[in-house]
This record gives sequence, structure tokens and C-alpha cells, in this order.
Amino acid sequence: MVITVIGLGLIGGSIAKRLKLTGFATEVIGVDVNPNHQQEAIELGLVDEVLPLEEAVKRSSLVIIAIPVDKTVDLVPEVLSLASDNTVVVDMGSTKKVICDTADNHPKRMNFVATHPMAGTENSGPTAADSQLFENKTAIICDRLKSGKSAVSLVEQLYAELNMNVIEMEAEDHDVHIAYVSHLSHVISFVLSETVLDKEKDVKHIFNMAGSGFASTVRLAKSSPDMWTPIFKENAKPISDVIGTYIDNLQKFKNMLDTNNSEGVYEVIERANSIQKVLK
Amino acid sequence: MVITVIGLGLIGGSIAKRLKLTGFATEVIGVDVNPNHQQEAIELGLVDEVLPLEEAVKRSSLVIIAIPVDKTVDLVPEVLSLASDNTVVVDMGSTKKVICDTADNHPKRMNFVATHPMAGTENSGPTAADSQLFENKTAIICDRLKSGKSAVSLVEQLYAELNMNVIEMEAEDHDVHIAYVSHLSHVISFVLSETVLDKEKDVKHIFNMAGSGFASTVRLAKSSPDMWTPIFKENAKPISDVIGTYIDNLQKFKNMLDTNNSEGVYEVIERANSIQKVLK
Repeated sequence: MVITVIGLGLIGGSIAKRLKLTGFATEVIGVDVNPNHQQEAIELGLVDEVLPLEEAVKRSSLVIIAIPVDKTVDLVPEVLSLASDNTVVVDMGSTKKVICDTADNHPKRMNFVATHPMAGTENSGPTAADSQLFENKTAIICDRLKSGKSAVSLVEQLYAELNMNVIEMEAEDHDVHIAYVSHLSHVISFVLSETVLDKEKDVKHIFNMAGSGFASTVRLAKSSPDMWTPIFKENAKPISDVIGTYIDNLQKFKNMLDTNNSEGVYEVIERANSIQKVLK
Repeated sequence: MVITVIGLGLIGGSIAKRLKLTGFATEVIGVDVNPNHQQEAIELGLVDEVLPLEEAVKRSSLVIIAIPVDKTVDLVPEVLSLASDNTVVVDMGSTKKVICDTADNHPKRMNFVATHPMAGTENSGPTAADSQLFENKTAIICDRLKSGKSAVSLVEQLYAELNMNVIEMEAEDHDVHIAYVSHLSHVISFVLSETVLDKEKDVKHIFNMAGSGFASTVRLAKSSPDMWTPIFKENAKPISDVIGTYIDNLQKFKNMLDTNNSEGVYEVIERANSIQKVLK
């Protein structure tokens, strides 16, 4: 099957690499606005060739869109319009409501499947591509009933090739849950980095004193602003709500410290510990 | 050299294991109030024998205190009083001011060295012991001039055996810096865990949707309340101040989302990214 991957960054590059490896793609065509990424993707063997959008889409049975979510909103209708009646279009965006709302108005809505593979690292670009990135992770298909059966079936095959477990969810629910389990973590990490860098003017202190705990909590602060600014824009309301709740809980914890309430502190930590039953 | 390790948890157990391995200790005596930990430490070969505090201290040239910081405050004067004039006592606590203030009043203050090895994991107990835990990490010696030269020299040898880099700092400065680069990360993680567990009543959502980003940010939430409650108590003021600054920055970020200020969001992320120059 000829597959076009639009956006040759961490996610698109990793998918391209994996689908060539498994043979699911007989040919992978890359599309990217960044000439450096085009060249790197070819040099790394992630794609067979790079073509302009229109030519690539017309030649493909499956088009995978893996670009920042604001660009995805613009591109989904454009790609659907260019695509043949049998071509399936799937996106990989971290927010789903705005993208689905836009796609809903398109006459070829049935050809589109809205998804979110829950995988990634703080690195970006074609050089970050890793064919094992998705191994045993979860992919979410949103608003499944708005997609055609054969389109969903092809996308399920795609995620089987990536060894991902597929779950389903309404786009709006997805955006609220993901605000809690992904977007909030990124806010926390960006703002932690900012706070420590602001305060610790002498960065040598950070370097010398920062244990592995700090490194772990601040890891996501290395994530790309080009990817994350659009996510924060498109999912602003749920994320803002979640930050509000988080601030309230931090304030309560701060009050416990200020009033020497060690019992309360102990209880918070004990409750927090139970996350280990949920995560490995 | 005969060495007593008081507290056979992650830190004490790892030190005991390492010092036996390198031969720095000809004999390691363990002291622990928890009978299970006593037994595990012997079974795992972390210590040669377990003795009551007084007997252990009297037989040792070096006594390493690796217990929660509130217990350390109580124990430092007791151990100093029990110890011979040539015995060196060193503590491993994550806060330093309260411990140093207490030690300052003791006639054998010169025999005591206040330190903080910046290493650890979210795991605890003798089974978590790892002889490589300290490799290339930083150890901080506080208020060095209040310790005798030969005591400091022995503690420097100890940290050389652990392959740690030693830096020096006043106890009060230590507590402020460490609030930023370690204690705040733990607060963030505990409160994140609490927030998500509160909201996501159906924990299956967390399990299915949580990517590696969430796991990384919430890792420290598994840390022990017995260790961390005393740290939050002893370093309450600096930690409370840091949480306040962090809340202010989160609130600013939230306001950017609420006012659709994508430019501001982009700038925060860009600034946050520069942490990668400081950390590997």
C-alpha cells in the first residue's frame, strides 16, 4: 500500500520507519514544509521520496497527518478534498474536538478517522524517529461512528502494525481526560523549568544540586513550542480548568506547611502514593 | 574500618552495600528500629550484623545516620554523646538547618559532619539498595568549618568511595536551593497524583491514556510519606515560598490560556526549553 506521511517529525517519522519495516507500506511518500526535515527523512530512510502535497495524496491509499494541531485543522479538509473516494485520511493530533468539528462539515467525513496515539518523547524532528515508539501504548479513536467502517478498519490495521492498543472515546471526552493525564503534566513541567531558571540565576546550583527527581519532573520542559502552543490554544478551556484545580490543591498543600499540619501532609502523600497501583 | 549505618533503607542500605564492596568498611554494623529491615539487610548481605544503637556506636570509627530528618534531629546529639572522641558522625538528611542548629549545641560538634548526598529513587527499604546509586552524583557538605578537619577528611573519603562529587554550602543556603531543585519537584508530583486521582474516578482512563510524559512527571509521587513529611516540616518556610512562586507562575500561564495569548504561551515554553542546556 502506498502511504503518505505528512509531517516528518517524531510521530510521523516513527510511523514511516515502522510501516516500512513491517512491510505494511510498499512505499512511503513524505510531505513536509521544512526542507531540512525532507532531506533528513530521506537520508535516514524514513521515506522513499518527498513529494508536494497534492501529488502525494493523489497517489496514496492512506494519508497520515502528523503535524501540529493548528495546522491539522487547516489541512484535514484540504487533504480530504484532494483525496480519491477510497483514500483514508487519519490524523495524530493531541487535541480532537476542534479537528473533528472542522472535519464534520466536509462531504468526505466518512473517509476521515480522528485519532491520538499516546506516545512521544521530549525530542522532535526526523532524527528522533523510533520504530518502537508506539510499542504497547494506547491509541484513541474519536467519534468512530462518523467514520466509514472500512476507513476505521484500515486505521485499526495501522495501529496493529504499530503494536498499539486501540480504545474509543468521544472527541470532547478525549480532550478533557487528556488535559488531566498529558497536557497538565506539560504545563507543570514548563512552569517548573521557568520558575527554577528565574530564581536560580546561578545555573551552576541547578546543575550541581539537581537530583534525578528534578530531571524526571522537568523532562517534558524540553518539548517543542511549535507543537505545544497550538495544543494549549485548541484545548484551552479544559486545560485552564485543570490548572485551576491543580492550583487549588497546591494552595491547600502550602497552607498545610504554613500551619504546621504534618498530619494533612502525610495524608496527601499517602493518597498520592496510590498512583503506583494505577501506573507501573 | 568498622562502620555503623543507622537506617537500613534506600540510602543507608546502598551506602552499606557499596562500602562493603569497595572494602572501605571492614565491618558494617546495621542499626534499624524495623525488625523486617534488620532481617532483610542481613539476608541481602548489606550489613555484617545488626546491633543495638549504643553497642554499635561504641564499636565504630564512623557512624552514618540515614533516617528521616526528624529522627535525625533527635539522634545526632544522642549518637555524639555515645561516641568515642575519635568517632566521626555524619548524617544524610535532605534538610540541613534544623539538624545543624541542634548539633551546634553539642560539645562534640567537631566530630559531626552535616551532609546531603543528592541521590535517590522513589523506592524505599533495604531491597531498594543499589551500590551504584551515588555514581557521579553530587554530595553537599554544610557548615564545613564547624566540623573538625579530620572528620571532614574522613567524610570526603567516604564520598570518594561512593564516586560522588562534593560541594560545600551553608546549611541555610542549602535548604533554600534544595527547596527549588528537589523539594518542589516532590510537591508537584504528589499534588499532581492527588489531582488526577481525585478527578479521574474511573482509574482505567488514567491507565489507558497516561503516556510516558505523565509517568515521568508523577514518578516521585510514589515516594515515602515517612521520609517526606518530616522534610516538609523542617523546611516548611523555604518550600512554602517556592510553592507560592510556582503558583503565581501557573496562574500567569492559566491567564494566558484564558485570554488566548498564544504568543505568551510560546515564550514560556521557549524559556522553559533552555533547561536542556543545564540538564543533560
